[in-house]
Amino acid sequence: MAAEAAIAATAGEVITCNAAVAYEAGAPMIVDKICVAPPKPSEVRLKITHTSLCRTDLTFWRAIGQKKVFPRIFGHEAAGIVESVGKEVTGVKPGDHVVPLFTGECQECRYCRSGKTNLCQKFKVDTDRGVLASDGTSRFSTKDGKPIYHFLGTSTFSEYTVVDQACVAKIDKAAPLDKVCLLSCGMTTGLGASINTAKVEKGSTVAIFGLGTIGFAAAQGAKIAGASRIIGIDVLPEKLALGKKFGLTDTVNPKEHDKPIQEVIKEMTDGGVDYAIECVGNVKLIEAAVESVHEGWGKAVVAGLDDNTKFVSVHPGNFLYGRLLTGTFFGDYKGRSQMNDLVEMYMKKELNLDDFITHNLPFHKINEAFQLLIEGKCLRCVLHMEHDH
Amino acid sequence: MAAEAAIAATAGEVITCNAAVAYEAGAPMIVDKICVAPPKPSEVRLKITHTSLCRTDLTFWRAIGQKKVFPRIFGHEAAGIVESVGKEVTGVKPGDHVVPLFTGECQECRYCRSGKTNLCQKFKVDTDRGVLASDGTSRFSTKDGKPIYHFLGTSTFSEYTVVDQACVAKIDKAAPLDKVCLLSCGMTTGLGASINTAKVEKGSTVAIFGLGTIGFAAAQGAKIAGASRIIGIDVLPEKLALGKKFGLTDTVNPKEHDKPIQEVIKEMTDGGVDYAIECVGNVKLIEAAVESVHEGWGKAVVAGLDDNTKFVSVHPGNFLYGRLLTGTFFGDYKGRSQMNDLVEMYMKKELNLDDFITHNLPFHKINEAFQLLIEGKCLRCVLHMEHDH
Ligand SMILES: NC(=O)c1ccc[n+]([C@@H]2O[C@H](COP(=O)([O-])OP(=O)(O)OC[C@H]3O[C@@H](n4cnc5c(N)ncnc54)[C@H](O)[C@@H]3O)[C@@H](O)[C@H]2O)c1
Ligand SMILES: NC(=O)c1ccc[n+]([C@@H]2O[C@H](COP(=O)([O-])OP(=O)(O)OC[C@H]3O[C@@H](n4cnc5c(N)ncnc54)[C@H](O)[C@@H]3O)[C@@H](O)[C@H]2O)c1
Ligand SMILES: [Zn+2]
Ligand SMILES: [Zn+2]
Ligand SMILES: [Zn+2]
Ligand SMILES: [Zn+2]
Repeated sequence: MAAEAAIAATAGEVITCNAAVAYEAGAPMIVDKICVAPPKPSEVRLKITHTSLCRTDLTFWRAIGQKKVFPRIFGHEAAGIVESVGKEVTGVKPGDHVVPLFTGECQECRYCRSGKTNLCQKFKVDTDRGVLASDGTSRFSTKDGKPIYHFLGTSTFSEYTVVDQACVAKIDKAAPLDKVCLLSCGMTTGLGASINTAKVEKGSTVAIFGLGTIGFAAAQGAKIAGASRIIGIDVLPEKLALGKKFGLTDTVNPKEHDKPIQEVIKEMTDGGVDYAIECVGNVKLIEAAVESVHEGWGKAVVAGLDDNTKFVSVHPGNFLYGRLLTGTFFGDYKGRSQMNDLVEMYMKKELNLDDFITHNLPFHKINEAFQLLIEGKCLRCVLHMEHDH
Repeated sequence: MAAEAAIAATAGEVITCNAAVAYEAGAPMIVDKICVAPPKPSEVRLKITHTSLCRTDLTFWRAIGQKKVFPRIFGHEAAGIVESVGKEVTGVKPGDHVVPLFTGECQECRYCRSGKTNLCQKFKVDTDRGVLASDGTSRFSTKDGKPIYHFLGTSTFSEYTVVDQACVAKIDKAAPLDKVCLLSCGMTTGLGASINTAKVEKGSTVAIFGLGTIGFAAAQGAKIAGASRIIGIDVLPEKLALGKKFGLTDTVNPKEHDKPIQEVIKEMTDGGVDYAIECVGNVKLIEAAVESVHEGWGKAVVAGLDDNTKFVSVHPGNFLYGRLLTGTFFGDYKGRSQMNDLVEMYMKKELNLDDFITHNLPFHKINEAFQLLIEGKCLRCVLHMEHDH
């Protein structure tokens, strides 16, 4: 209770704390004091304890073929503790342990009530506006009062952040925040891409394009679903070498083949895999994924996203012959409704998170962590915050 | 029995009969005597009584962006009577009433047994080879002995044709062959695109691109499935005018709008339809179909096929936001297993075929019938054969 009381002391006040601010596309972030306004009525202010890095942060920081929204605080894969809540907030209270959700769930809109999607009409993925949805403004500002943009409604590269109550999932207090932060994006996305979106079946074959956290999480999902063959594809031998640990039965490096990768996959699998999951965001790989799945029933799922200016070019015959292409945000999981189930899976050791954490660094070394991801040297690097209060 | 006995007299012999032979892409067909060899062991020789025209015949006759396989006998939407059978044939016997199937069903291969597709590994749609699958040769020849290519394994623009037993469905003898010939392709494809492939649900919204027989059959399928709103899109006002008869609740002519048709559909439907069925084969319309469906759950289905050199270009964000693209041959119906169910639906007046037959002509006027289809003046024109024995 002492800890909770201490947090509550800042309620209603502007908090000054450290955040990593990206002032320009692709330039190192600057870790410095910023101001975080109190939450609006429907919002929650979080004390972030841990944040990891996902390639989506990298993509929008680089902003190649993406709208440039700067200065901005990135970060969306994290865990923390509720510091204070707006007056309309009912689902969480100060002291609750939570993970932020970049795909919100208001539980009231047409989308949330449809039973057909995990997208929320009001709290969909926001890559371009960089504000909070409740009033279209920012809660962050520089010491001299200039606004700083949000990212994905979460902005976890900050000791404190403000998110809507639709964008926060309460979790079991017994769960280690330095591990379950991975459920806030990467693990859940990959897992769900296999289990919920592709709906991988027992005995089926799966190809996974790109072996980062999303890709290996998709492999874990395929394994849980009972796939008999899980083929991982990556251009980095060190990623392929990790394959066995995450359930891959086969690995393929496209650089070692003269023919298109889809031809290699087809030959390995008597005409194609049942499911292909694209975890890079490269349109050429999305095309390869479509052509890697078996005619008649194969499904390709896009999980990756990258350069927004590129289009996927596919022959319509692929579809006439019964192939299917779809995609996923956040693995088709509903964050508020289902997050704690995933946390419990981890607690029961049904889910491997630990092996995905290849690095740990203090928050102020965030630019180093970005470098690890750029160079393909890590799966997840978890940063721990260094709060001075 | 008299009729059956008369048919059987030709068994084992080469039959000389009239067929419409296309000697060159896009040139009028020539109706003249040709020779039809007896069926090989797994094959069936049919006396065609009626054949209708489908745009697929037109597409491969024009052969724009398609392999040129000539001389050739087109036609795949038909009905007839078994004249004789090869020695391995068990499912049909001389005198049976049947419809040919351009998507065969051997009932034995991996595909047929998968329960996941109506495609058959051995008797898939054959547009490019122009031979029968049993031995890779043709049963048709000119009077001076030159081979003539098959089309889709059916070639029904001939008084007699040979098909594999996998490519023929036995139907109720009480069914009028001049009507149920439509079930041999167009009606079944459109109906199934809505019912089986898109899986249209009660109360849902559907957009149909292209109002030929496939499009209106898809509308009929959507209506049977209980759709509350069925929007038909065509560039010909006379097609739009037929809308009410086939269950359309709204019609849209893209030529009457400045903005892209997907924007028009989205505005009409609060963000997009639940299902879109493309029944033209135009890649631009396939793209529009993808963008016409609602994010989160919308499904686009390709039924049309045309120029084989064109690719569909879609933004990957469409898939990340939960849209889905797939396609269908023959409406995902299994021809041999399910055809007679559709025939019975017609007999019980649960299925409208009659209104789709806008024209009837004798077989020798086949070039006129092609012209009607080219000019968009007909839905289906049924040709009746003029057998002289
Ligand atoms: N849909 C969602 O909800 C969602 C959520 C999180 C991340 N993502 C996206 O998922 C993707 C993966 O994220 P991550 O954090 O796992 O990234 P990561 O950088 O850790 O992994 C990407 C992997 O792809 C490999 N790769 C790159 N180019 C390749 C190619 N041409 N062929 C084969 N492999 C190639 C890299 O070597 C690397 O191992 C990113 O595009 C990210 O934006 C999507
Ligand atoms: N997948 C299958 O199994 C299968 C089976 C049969 C037919 N097909 C295909 O289905 C398609 C339709 O066949 P059909 O016999 O009904 O053809 P049809 O010629 O009778 O109808 C096509 C309709 O599309 C309309 N159209 C053309 N361009 C258009 C545009 N840009 N915008 C809107 N409307 C447009 C035409 O006006 C016409 O009404 C063809 O491509 C055919 O090859 C596929
Ligand atoms: Zn992420
Ligand atoms: Zn909602
Ligand atoms: Zn047809
Ligand atoms: Zn088969």
